[in-house]
Amino acid sequence: MNRLCIYDTTLRDGAQSEGLSFSVEDKLQIARQLDRLGIPLIEGGWPGANPKDVQFFWQLQEEPLTQAEVVAFCSTRRPGRLAAEEPMLQPILAARTHWVTIFGKSWDLHVTEGLKTTLDENLAMIRDTIEFFRDRGRQVIYDAEHWFDGYRNNPEYALSTLKVAIAAGAEWITLCDTNGGMLPHDIARIIRETRAALKSTTDEPIKLGIHTHNDSDTAVANAIAAVMEGTQMVQGTMNGYGERCGNANLCSLIANLQLKLGYRCIEDAQMARLTEVSRFISEVANLAPDDRAPFVGRSAFAHKGGIHVSAVQRNPKTYEHLPPESVGNQRRIVISEQAGLSNLLVKARSFGIDLEKQNPLCRDILTRLKELESQGYQFEAAEASFELLMREALGERSGFFDIDGFQIHCHQERTLSHALATVKLTVNGREILEAAEGNGPVSALDAALRKALVNFYPEIAQFNLADYKVRILDSNAGTAAKTRVLVESTNGHQRWRTVGVSTNIIDASYQAVVEGLEYGLSLQERAKALLSLRSPG
Amino acid sequence: MNRLCIYDTTLRDGAQSEGLSFSVEDKLQIARQLDRLGIPLIEGGWPGANPKDVQFFWQLQEEPLTQAEVVAFCSTRRPGRLAAEEPMLQPILAARTHWVTIFGKSWDLHVTEGLKTTLDENLAMIRDTIEFFRDRGRQVIYDAEHWFDGYRNNPEYALSTLKVAIAAGAEWITLCDTNGGMLPHDIARIIRETRAALKSTTDEPIKLGIHTHNDSDTAVANAIAAVMEGTQMVQGTMNGYGERCGNANLCSLIANLQLKLGYRCIEDAQMARLTEVSRFISEVANLAPDDRAPFVGRSAFAHKGGIHVSAVQRNPKTYEHLPPESVGNQRRIVISEQAGLSNLLVKARSFGIDLEKQNPLCRDILTRLKELESQGYQFEAAEASFELLMREALGERSGFFDIDGFQIHCHQERTLSHALATVKLTVNGREILEAAEGNGPVSALDAALRKALVNFYPEIAQFNLADYKVRILDSNAGTAAKTRVLVESTNGHQRWRTVGVSTNIIDASYQAVVEGLEYGLSLQERAKALLSLRSPG
Repeated sequence: MNRLCIYDTTLRDGAQSEGLSFSVEDKLQIARQLDRLGIPLIEGGWPGANPKDVQFFWQLQEEPLTQAEVVAFCSTRRPGRLAAEEPMLQPILAARTHWVTIFGKSWDLHVTEGLKTTLDENLAMIRDTIEFFRDRGRQVIYDAEHWFDGYRNNPEYALSTLKVAIAAGAEWITLCDTNGGMLPHDIARIIRETRAALKSTTDEPIKLGIHTHNDSDTAVANAIAAVMEGTQMVQGTMNGYGERCGNANLCSLIANLQLKLGYRCIEDAQMARLTEVSRFISEVANLAPDDRAPFVGRSAFAHKGGIHVSAVQRNPKTYEHLPPESVGNQRRIVISEQAGLSNLLVKARSFGIDLEKQNPLCRDILTRLKELESQGYQFEAAEASFELLMREALGERSGFFDIDGFQIHCHQERTLSHALATVKLTVNGREILEAAEGNGPVSALDAALRKALVNFYPEIAQFNLADYKVRILDSNAGTAAKTRVLVESTNGHQRWRTVGVSTNIIDASYQAVVEGLEYGLSLQERAKALLSLRSPG
Repeated sequence: MNRLCIYDTTLRDGAQSEGLSFSVEDKLQIARQLDRLGIPLIEGGWPGANPKDVQFFWQLQEEPLTQAEVVAFCSTRRPGRLAAEEPMLQPILAARTHWVTIFGKSWDLHVTEGLKTTLDENLAMIRDTIEFFRDRGRQVIYDAEHWFDGYRNNPEYALSTLKVAIAAGAEWITLCDTNGGMLPHDIARIIRETRAALKSTTDEPIKLGIHTHNDSDTAVANAIAAVMEGTQMVQGTMNGYGERCGNANLCSLIANLQLKLGYRCIEDAQMARLTEVSRFISEVANLAPDDRAPFVGRSAFAHKGGIHVSAVQRNPKTYEHLPPESVGNQRRIVISEQAGLSNLLVKARSFGIDLEKQNPLCRDILTRLKELESQGYQFEAAEASFELLMREALGERSGFFDIDGFQIHCHQERTLSHALATVKLTVNGREILEAAEGNGPVSALDAALRKALVNFYPEIAQFNLADYKVRILDSNAGTAAKTRVLVESTNGHQRWRTVGVSTNIIDASYQAVVEGLEYGLSLQERAKALLSLRSPG
């Protein structure tokens, strides 16, 4: 089986994503996850470009990764000076990595217009910089920036940059589609031509890498095309983070290359952690995970239509390109109007509820579901609310609190705005009246509810509203339209979603927020029950 | 130049997206946009599968599209009955389209395990159903579901299904990668083999289409691979909506095929509207546009790094794979402000405002615009608000009324809910205090405002809120997130849209509602001014 070298640049190129900013601690957490996943080369950053990257490498010297090599990234020296006298290269040495990635210019346009130097000086810069690191015991990966555009524009000059890099001792040559404009057949053709042109340069076969961007929506296919042309290193980022439209998504690449094309990238046991690692990284990045992401997304193996659902239960191959477990994801039967009895039973099982087909309550649950859906409720994105509904029908819903009512007061005078909420509830037989302010009616309501409950359920202090979505259902009805509110809550390690519907947006939000609190408490309660079962005595 | 037939299935396969639900009005709006964009075939839905799709086709009979053909979608008849006696096919006829797309099974596994019928009966179902529609004057596109998996599993049987479809008179054969598991080289090889195997079947060359899904993250590359093998029809959805990981994204496909590969898909003038149409559709779908989307995403031409920014300003080719204007997108320099002076002048002209380039107020308007946009305002879908902003800067904004403040009171006790609004305003020097109830805080506020104003401006009785949309901007911020409200108002013959933004959903709604009333009054005033100019004497 052919082994491929996966090179992760989430921490460097991925960090160029608009709206993404990693702390040193974030970077360390991600590096350790990638290490455990079995990624052999992890580009950690450009030491010297900012204090964070210096500190990151320093901390890894204290506590090294177990298997992976961390790579320091940097450009060739600047024009008109010696590498040994280039201050920019010193922090790279100080990072004390075995591997250094040097990027240099392949495209003549970038040399003359970007660097404002001569084509010959660019060659000297590549040679000098690589030799500088080779002389100091580093192994060098040479990233040929804009390789494909450069080759198209001036193949002869472009090739001369690679020849210099090889002669100077670069171990790997990475061909980069920096602007992301190539299509798979462009990549394949140019790699074939490049390889042929370089044949005479060295006796050993040249080790090539590929680095693609998603501007043409083909980054993954471009990298696969390169591998099929014999490229042995694949660069990309987890979740496809990166500048503009992002880099090639390693989650998709690793799964395609190993599960479909038979290359060896990571251990099988680790492959089954792919989804978990992808979501962990989006948590650390503080970016909402992409539900539609291939392989690892929440919807990647979700079935909605009735035909699909019954077919997939008979034989998953009918509507799944591979078993979701192979990448650590799971099949989801989406609860929706079309939901039949079999969907319901599958769903109940996933909630850990034993529900028999013969149980007459099944009918009741289905009827209630249809009724709520016709009112505008939608449970496909609010499984926690659906579980509460199911447990209620089965008489298993815990009554943590009982709300008697609430009041909201919003007030605006000129530009000064104000929101106040009052709630009245009963917990363990005690009646509580509580009030809170917020920057809007819903946040005021949420604050008042927590204030009222936290003395009884201190774990509520850990709960957070992670997401709040509003959808006007029949928007043509104007402000009299029905509103559906989806709320995602978290306790720091779990997430759950609840729904509310009303013509009054406050009422809809209130329902979703209250169910979110209730579901969180029920999770906690079940976790405690499980612990007490397991504890001896 | 080779012409390709683009086939849009946003309204059918796209609507299978988790969390997406189109109303009939949404579907009509999208169909008209696609028509204007120049998409020749628009799959509208499965008439009979639900009342919405029936109504959609019925409404299009009343008010047809200008250029595009709308296509009705349906499966082959069920096993063991005649097509003429299959009730499922009747609503398809009633939809009165020229084109019908019939999907049938290519994969033996699906015939025996899914349909639970014989391989021969499946062939009869395909033949019968196509003939049924051909006999009734329809042109038929045959969608070969699971083509690639089916061909892999049993090529002989799979090919026999296509032969039957061709013999029965299907105009087009669409090869579908229903499970989305293929990679580009699989697609290319199977299409080559399919074409070769079918050569003997007919004298005329067979017209092939391609339908791909994104489960392997290669949907766009797969469709391109098919086109490079001579496929002349390309199916996909706008923004890549669709079940699981979505369908091939038509925005990316149209741009790649036309701008990079030289095929003709739509007019150049329409190509420059691609971004606008993509965003319009995500507005209607009420899904946040994907900033990282290739070609049309907000970040697709955003430059962040210092080197990139200065290089791109010297020569955009250095870090852009194509000019953003070619797809109607724009370059964004993330740190520095980008002047939109010419845009502004075009916009002013469209409002009937004479604004000279030299006018120093242009700068003021641009600055104000940037400031508001950074707060989350979006004027693309709220031109009335933008016109008010412009007229304000020019000192041309009429003061119809002056609002001093409002109060909202919402109250819920058990399930009884209540909303009351009080407004205080000044009209023509008179101070007015008015209150109204509603079924939610916004409708109460709207009612109170109208009650206060109708005595002064009786035309307000004709105004209506036609649409009310809410979008949470930074939804990760939970209930403290910013809210953007879009309101569409009408006076019975004109429509206009306004926007409001605030962390308080009530304040945001209030801004949009108030500007909606003001803009309506200004329209009325200008109409009167025009009439008095025209009236003799």
